[in-house]
Amino acid sequence: MFVLVGLGLKLEHLTLEALEIIKACDKVFLEKYTLDISYDFDALTKLTGKNIKLIERKDVESYSFLPLSEEKDKKTNKNVALLVFGDPLIATTHTELLLEAKQRGLETRIIHNISILNVISRTGLQPYKFGKIASIPFWQENIEYRPCGFYNLLEQNQKIGAHTLFLLDLNPIDNKYLSPGLAIEMLIKCEMLKKKQIINEDTLFIVCSRLCSNTEKIVVGKYNKIKSIGFGLPPHCIIIPSPPHFKEQEFLSQFNSS
Amino acid sequence: MFVLVGLGLKLEHLTLEALEIIKACDKVFLEKYTLDISYDFDALTKLTGKNIKLIERKDVESYSFLPLSEEKDKKTNKNVALLVFGDPLIATTHTELLLEAKQRGLETRIIHNISILNVISRTGLQPYKFGKIASIPFWQENIEYRPCGFYNLLEQNQKIGAHTLFLLDLNPIDNKYLSPGLAIEMLIKCEMLKKKQIINEDTLFIVCSRLCSNTEKIVVGKYNKIKSIGFGLPPHCIIIPSPPHFKEQEFLSQFNSS
Repeated sequence: MFVLVGLGLKLEHLTLEALEIIKACDKVFLEKYTLDISYDFDALTKLTGKNIKLIERKDVESYSFLPLSEEKDKKTNKNVALLVFGDPLIATTHTELLLEAKQRGLETRIIHNISILNVISRTGLQPYKFGKIASIPFWQENIEYRPCGFYNLLEQNQKIGAHTLFLLDLNPIDNKYLSPGLAIEMLIKCEMLKKKQIINEDTLFIVCSRLCSNTEKIVVGKYNKIKSIGFGLPPHCIIIPSPPHFKEQEFLSQFNSS
Repeated sequence: MFVLVGLGLKLEHLTLEALEIIKACDKVFLEKYTLDISYDFDALTKLTGKNIKLIERKDVESYSFLPLSEEKDKKTNKNVALLVFGDPLIATTHTELLLEAKQRGLETRIIHNISILNVISRTGLQPYKFGKIASIPFWQENIEYRPCGFYNLLEQNQKIGAHTLFLLDLNPIDNKYLSPGLAIEMLIKCEMLKKKQIINEDTLFIVCSRLCSNTEKIVVGKYNKIKSIGFGLPPHCIIIPSPPHFKEQEFLSQFNSS
């Protein structure tokens, strides 16, 4: 059996189902690439009593940790779990893992958990009103090309009055992450390049840092306010709301930076 | 203190955080209106050791169960929890509850959990590519007016190439729920009224029933196939995908009804 297990955003998000199935698995892996610096990995190890093996992104993509087939799987008594932060089906690679496992004749299970899609509701914005989600990637230094796909997606969402969630790139292995200030500068740069007039000095940004942690920070403001604020360690995300409903506005006003 | 606690979609979705905080609360309420028939309420009571009081929708909306203030709260040692299926911030009423509690000077906490927004990823469709979410409500019998807001929202999402999730109305108290077949007929009726040519006989529907339960059913097909299928008890939801990516298509093909 192959199980994809969501860990949520912190140790306390572990579900009864996840705890039970991790304990029942013979081999437990966690993808190093997604190792969130704020996650209490040692406590997870203690709680589950498992030797959790960290593996590289390339091991996940080459399926090298997957059992070969259910038959072989049974003989060697190997139920294998891959632990994933958040909910396990947010990243494309993981649906491919499930397809590969099925092709090998393995039984598969998906253990869901809390993801960023849940916790952005802490801003008071209605989850129903979000449009497509964009990632803001690192722009390569020394290369002139500036991909603005995230800006184009914002334009699409704004056309239909939907809120836009931007996930900011991070690379935990290199301890490298996109800061909210830089991400907003990239949006402004795209505005200057594309000139669709969807971002201006009155645009409201909602910056969410370390949602659900003890150091959670939610700030609402225009770029002029936001740029002087230090948001600290990742994960960060930014929301550009469509004109909010008055109830959303009331809730948001708790987080005003000014 | 007032705590909004998400229960997820089944007992096993309970998080360590939710379990701990329910146990620590003096009064625990669950809104009767949202009582999901498939949820093991007795097991929840046993697991938490709490006398969980079922309250009516009107009690939630009138805040009658909320402590009056933190001061009084401390004296009477009453930490109050309201349990909610799924994630607690999906319904508007609950952000209003938080605002009301804050106005009363109460400390508030939000305990997240798995919601329908997570588990639709079981179809293999990318959560990133979903647009705004629509509820399909019961149409009133004996009244000619047929509100088609959900159809208009589909049109908006299709304009930007986003998948559309429809949540089907259900009223657990009266044991009344909208069946997937009827919901699709309502969409077709709206097409006939509005004539935007966004639904036709080739439209692909993904019907998801009782996601994450032992009787989960995911069916992909056109209306002609779908209409002859019995989907059983709720909850149900329907997805109309935008033209899917080939990887999404590959995953979806597992659920073909034909």
